[in-house]
Amino acid sequence: MSQRKRVAIVGIGLIGGSLAIQLHEKKLSSKLIGVDDNEEHARQAVELELVDETMPLNDAIEQSDVIVLAIPVDKLVSLLPSIMDKIDQQIVVDLGSTKSQLVDVIKSHPKRRRYVATHPMWGTEYSGPQSAVRGAYENKAVIICNAEDSDADALDWVKNMYKKIGMHLLEMEAKAHDLHAAYVSHISHITSFALANTVLEKEKEENAIFELASAGFESTVRLAKSNPAMWVPIFMQNKENVLDVLKEHIAQLSRFKESIEKEDNEYLMKLIENANKIRRIIK
Amino acid sequence: MSQRKRVAIVGIGLIGGSLAIQLHEKKLSSKLIGVDDNEEHARQAVELELVDETMPLNDAIEQSDVIVLAIPVDKLVSLLPSIMDKIDQQIVVDLGSTKSQLVDVIKSHPKRRRYVATHPMWGTEYSGPQSAVRGAYENKAVIICNAEDSDADALDWVKNMYKKIGMHLLEMEAKAHDLHAAYVSHISHITSFALANTVLEKEKEENAIFELASAGFESTVRLAKSNPAMWVPIFMQNKENVLDVLKEHIAQLSRFKESIEKEDNEYLMKLIENANKIRRIIK
Repeated sequence: MSQRKRVAIVGIGLIGGSLAIQLHEKKLSSKLIGVDDNEEHARQAVELELVDETMPLNDAIEQSDVIVLAIPVDKLVSLLPSIMDKIDQQIVVDLGSTKSQLVDVIKSHPKRRRYVATHPMWGTEYSGPQSAVRGAYENKAVIICNAEDSDADALDWVKNMYKKIGMHLLEMEAKAHDLHAAYVSHISHITSFALANTVLEKEKEENAIFELASAGFESTVRLAKSNPAMWVPIFMQNKENVLDVLKEHIAQLSRFKESIEKEDNEYLMKLIENANKIRRIIK
Repeated sequence: MSQRKRVAIVGIGLIGGSLAIQLHEKKLSSKLIGVDDNEEHARQAVELELVDETMPLNDAIEQSDVIVLAIPVDKLVSLLPSIMDKIDQQIVVDLGSTKSQLVDVIKSHPKRRRYVATHPMWGTEYSGPQSAVRGAYENKAVIICNAEDSDADALDWVKNMYKKIGMHLLEMEAKAHDLHAAYVSHISHITSFALANTVLEKEKEENAIFELASAGFESTVRLAKSNPAMWVPIFMQNKENVLDVLKEHIAQLSRFKESIEKEDNEYLMKLIENANKIRRIIK
């Protein structure tokens, strides 16, 4: 059975572009169509041979079997219903980092079952088609949300696609996904952005401060380069969960502050020993 | 001119062990002596051929030309004066992450000029001789503090050592060093420890939370595996600077919290765009 389909990728940047490379390499696509509002990105996507050609969204919907949405989550929420209005039997799949609002907005749509809600847990701090990389997604997790609301054939093709590009599949309700994503992805970005701002603030008085930036600093601040157009809507859509984890994180930081203020070595030791338990998770 | 000397390394773990490998490879040492309170570590250091032999501190001082101190900063402060009491014309160099207390404690010592205060900006989240790695320190910065208080020959040998192992040298007063280190190293560790505690706290109710941990999470939480015996004394010795940066960091996080609470997209966008300026620093 050939799994090859004509695939339209809406949003041909880091996420969509990297997927395009894998779809071609794993022989999942017979044709790759790019759709992008950003004309420069569209041009680059063809030039970099990420897609065969680019065209307006409506033409792409007509000429494809699968429509992959790799755009910021605010645009997803506004665009998904209108795409669903236009499809016949095409499969629609999104790669967004938040899922609750999206499955809510499409819940009662007559074509709901042609849609598969997913979140492949891969990304870098870069954006645009030129940052697309080969071998992305390999050995990473992908979450399929509310799988019971999708048609079996759509779900099968999407699951097979993710398996072929080397991902391991997890299924989860959209609400659970958003909670977990706040803890293991969204908060990391906020701490990184805030850390960058902390140090950049100090740099105004201390020019030399970055001369001695170490690998540890680079590792914690790397995500601060991430694209605001992608992250602002994620934080806003996942507001409640993100605020919960952010409050907890500030409370945890305050414990470090207190223990240092009071020179309570024993308490500080306990806080760090507890943090060391992360070894169980991150090898 | 042969630069080879008999070198004693006090504390033969991650930092001391990795230096030992480089001293040998770059033909800087004619003999490598290990000193470690931890008998298991001492045994491993010989077994792993990091050092030629191990012996008690007093014997090592007698039998070496250079004494390298690679022990936690609280032990440095208590041990350095007594080592200086025992040396003749040996060079003493420390690799500790804080410098002010250390140069203060030794300021009026009659042998002060035989001592060179340094901080090579390299480390990993692991500890012990088994975590020593080859090629460590290469292309990293090393800070030499209060260089004017050291004898020229001692300073020359130490500088040459760091150059030979591939480091670029910076000179700084100890106070400036501690301020900068708080911003570009110490705070990264605190945010990482606190982030680990935040997520581990949540994991108590949500078992599956780590199934979807992404590369971004790993990168920001990696340092949380770091050794408390090393880090508690660093934070305590650098208390004032660490508290300043920690307060600023909590204030920066609170801005993210506020902007999300108020759904102020524009403010959140500005915060992230500002954080993106870190691109200038971290390529």
